[in-house]
Amino acid sequence: MTASPGPSPTRMYALSSEPKPQDLLTRTLPLPGCGHPPGTSHWYLPASDKTVHWGYFSKNLRPILEVASGDYVTIECLTHCASDDYERMIKGDPGAESVFYWTKNQKNVNRRGAGSLDASIGAGGGGAEGAHICTGPIYVREAAPGDVLEVHILDMYPRPCANPAYKNKAFGSNVIGSWGFHAGHLVEEPKDRETVTIFEFDATGEQRWAQAVYSFRWAPVIDPNGVMHPKYDYVGLVIDHKHVQSKEGILKNVRIPLRPHFGVLGVAPKEADMVNTVPPSYTGGNVDNWRSGKGATLYYPVAVEGALLSAGDTHAAQGDGEICGAAIESSWTGVLQLILHKRGSMTPHLEGLNYPLLETAKEWVVHGFSFPNYLGQLRVEDKFAVFTKSTLDLAMRDAYTKMRDLLMRGFRLSEDEAIALMAVSVDFGLTQIVNGNIGMHAILQKSVFATT
Amino acid sequence: MTASPGPSPTRMYALSSEPKPQDLLTRTLPLPGCGHPPGTSHWYLPASDKTVHWGYFSKNLRPILEVASGDYVTIECLTHCASDDYERMIKGDPGAESVFYWTKNQKNVNRRGAGSLDASIGAGGGGAEGAHICTGPIYVREAAPGDVLEVHILDMYPRPCANPAYKNKAFGSNVIGSWGFHAGHLVEEPKDRETVTIFEFDATGEQRWAQAVYSFRWAPVIDPNGVMHPKYDYVGLVIDHKHVQSKEGILKNVRIPLRPHFGVLGVAPKEADMVNTVPPSYTGGNVDNWRSGKGATLYYPVAVEGALLSAGDTHAAQGDGEICGAAIESSWTGVLQLILHKRGSMTPHLEGLNYPLLETAKEWVVHGFSFPNYLGQLRVEDKFAVFTKSTLDLAMRDAYTKMRDLLMRGFRLSEDEAIALMAVSVDFGLTQIVNGNIGMHAILQKSVFATT
Repeated sequence: MTASPGPSPTRMYALSSEPKPQDLLTRTLPLPGCGHPPGTSHWYLPASDKTVHWGYFSKNLRPILEVASGDYVTIECLTHCASDDYERMIKGDPGAESVFYWTKNQKNVNRRGAGSLDASIGAGGGGAEGAHICTGPIYVREAAPGDVLEVHILDMYPRPCANPAYKNKAFGSNVIGSWGFHAGHLVEEPKDRETVTIFEFDATGEQRWAQAVYSFRWAPVIDPNGVMHPKYDYVGLVIDHKHVQSKEGILKNVRIPLRPHFGVLGVAPKEADMVNTVPPSYTGGNVDNWRSGKGATLYYPVAVEGALLSAGDTHAAQGDGEICGAAIESSWTGVLQLILHKRGSMTPHLEGLNYPLLETAKEWVVHGFSFPNYLGQLRVEDKFAVFTKSTLDLAMRDAYTKMRDLLMRGFRLSEDEAIALMAVSVDFGLTQIVNGNIGMHAILQKSVFATT
Repeated sequence: MTASPGPSPTRMYALSSEPKPQDLLTRTLPLPGCGHPPGTSHWYLPASDKTVHWGYFSKNLRPILEVASGDYVTIECLTHCASDDYERMIKGDPGAESVFYWTKNQKNVNRRGAGSLDASIGAGGGGAEGAHICTGPIYVREAAPGDVLEVHILDMYPRPCANPAYKNKAFGSNVIGSWGFHAGHLVEEPKDRETVTIFEFDATGEQRWAQAVYSFRWAPVIDPNGVMHPKYDYVGLVIDHKHVQSKEGILKNVRIPLRPHFGVLGVAPKEADMVNTVPPSYTGGNVDNWRSGKGATLYYPVAVEGALLSAGDTHAAQGDGEICGAAIESSWTGVLQLILHKRGSMTPHLEGLNYPLLETAKEWVVHGFSFPNYLGQLRVEDKFAVFTKSTLDLAMRDAYTKMRDLLMRGFRLSEDEAIALMAVSVDFGLTQIVNGNIGMHAILQKSVFATT
């Protein structure tokens, strides 16, 4: 495909002001008890240029917070797509302004991916090998490889728009990106287009749906360092809306039910120093399961000392599949409790866990991937192999194996019992098909285990 | 794999008596109004050796009932797995006894599949190319190719066990068969085993779950015609339980939530004279979506004059995937209303429909297949190609395309609107991975279309 003849490239939207000084943004503070069990602390982790890492995981990152097992963390997450609408998702928000700040002379968060920092040989610092703004990492005291970290999501609330023009609203962005499942299969012209849709929803939490506000077609952008971006190929390019054509009245009368969740939540893998946030793996990361919301608990195998938990890529809503390559990408704050399970003293369903396991009030959900540990299975040097070698069939085989093993190991069933139970009551579904390492999940209803 | 050293082959269970004369079984009778709209009839279609076709669809089958658009049909369906436990699923039930009757001298339903009738060159009449007992076909007056047949499932109720020893119970069978997704991936020995689990549930409808009663490992069987079956490779082989070892106490305290539905429901395809019931296709058939139960509506493209609707393969419960190759296979009776939509006078979401579309109270569900019309896409002579060439990735592409087109054609969205809506709210899942033509579905919540 060749690039469509679009508008001329424009320079990035000029920021209206320098970011304000923000002492708060670098502090983590123990909060008063709030009814939490004695001996636990509740920490507040704001998102700022000092508390995020962008587009990569790394076992070498300096932790921004150290907690004990049982502690609570309120954690702010920012969407990497906020720059699609600066007025609605960044302006007036000190944390967001500090993260996205980028002029010719200063780029507060230069690295935005796991690749080269030399912007001249790539799309920008980090080389566009990764996407998500992650808050963290959090060091969990005494966590060691072989342990399991339990992350209970107690609450999630939207980050209200800080611009007084949009009081009590929150916003998100969906990108029909060139990396989506639709790509190469469009029927309307121009077939190499990328389209961004801005959604709004109620920041007070009363209305539980999102609505489209407008959309625009991506037009080439020159970033502050002079790199031209004909495609949506680098995160945090602030769009100058004078140079794109907005389309109003789209998805008229359509209400998207909210499914707030963490797209990215996970611990640092041990296999490589710098890891692209896009493909999920055994340590979690960009799993993109919309069930990872309020009330859910995730269990991760600890791979490095301290676990190094990070969170980001919060979504207001997503369907199983995330087929266009994005959900409603928006900024949310979550309240987490972290509990460490030491190797050798866990319940049977956790011992030896080697993938992100999800528990909700009513379900157990296992996550299968085309490559359960792609960093360990594929050559680390061939870092894009996972994007080309993944198939749904591989992910399904992995989901099947994990659910069978959970039933056998965790619930003490024979293999025949496990297989029969799966056939008659476990639901297999697509998690996502756009993150390189394709995900399929299997859902076991807890209610099958009768209490009488 | 080599066959495991199992018990010696045994002869089939001897039927205790000749089937009783059953005038009722060949009659279809218009019922009194029952509150149905004037001008419509309500027909009763019992299952017997005179009203079923077993293991195949055919455009050349003589209809057993002719109805007008708007008519109601109460239709009995028998599971092909009933012979796994004759005492619980056949004995004392005149319809089931007539269908399964098979001695050396008489086999009431000889053809059990789309293959050769010469048992000496195959597993038995029909060559094991197909599995399901289908009641029908029903001829819908004025139905012609290009029309759409709407089948509304008004109710489903279990076929109670006719054996007084099991009053108010109903039963089903699950087979961990050699054609399942687990095959070749077993971890416990012997790895070439096949296991049958018998489930029971409440025939009165009060308790909404099924429980395992016992299981047994398949042992070689010699059928009444002298053909040896080392595997579960032919339908309707009555098991002599004196020659298999039953295992009790399995899946203890496990309750499987009921999801009663039609595994097989569809119209006759036009592409071939004899069609194996196993792979689903554009005309429906063995779609195996557990959402095809009470309250659901299916829409099928009519391919031949009269549509020729058949129903069977009823299940008490199934998970998305049906991974071992079977659900809780059991006999149920459904109440259907059939409505014909003539080409050129349909709503936009039905016009041009070329696959089985499912509607529930809250959802629209499209069905993708590895090969949307495998009979038309693959060489008809190479009738097993669909079993070897299907992939999940192909099925996913088809599900995506069908949902996009439904949103564009049926709900008048632009392509960008359709893709964004799918990414943020449509759920893609596995329907089944064991029927040759792999199925994936996409679920659209009706609630996204706000009424205000």
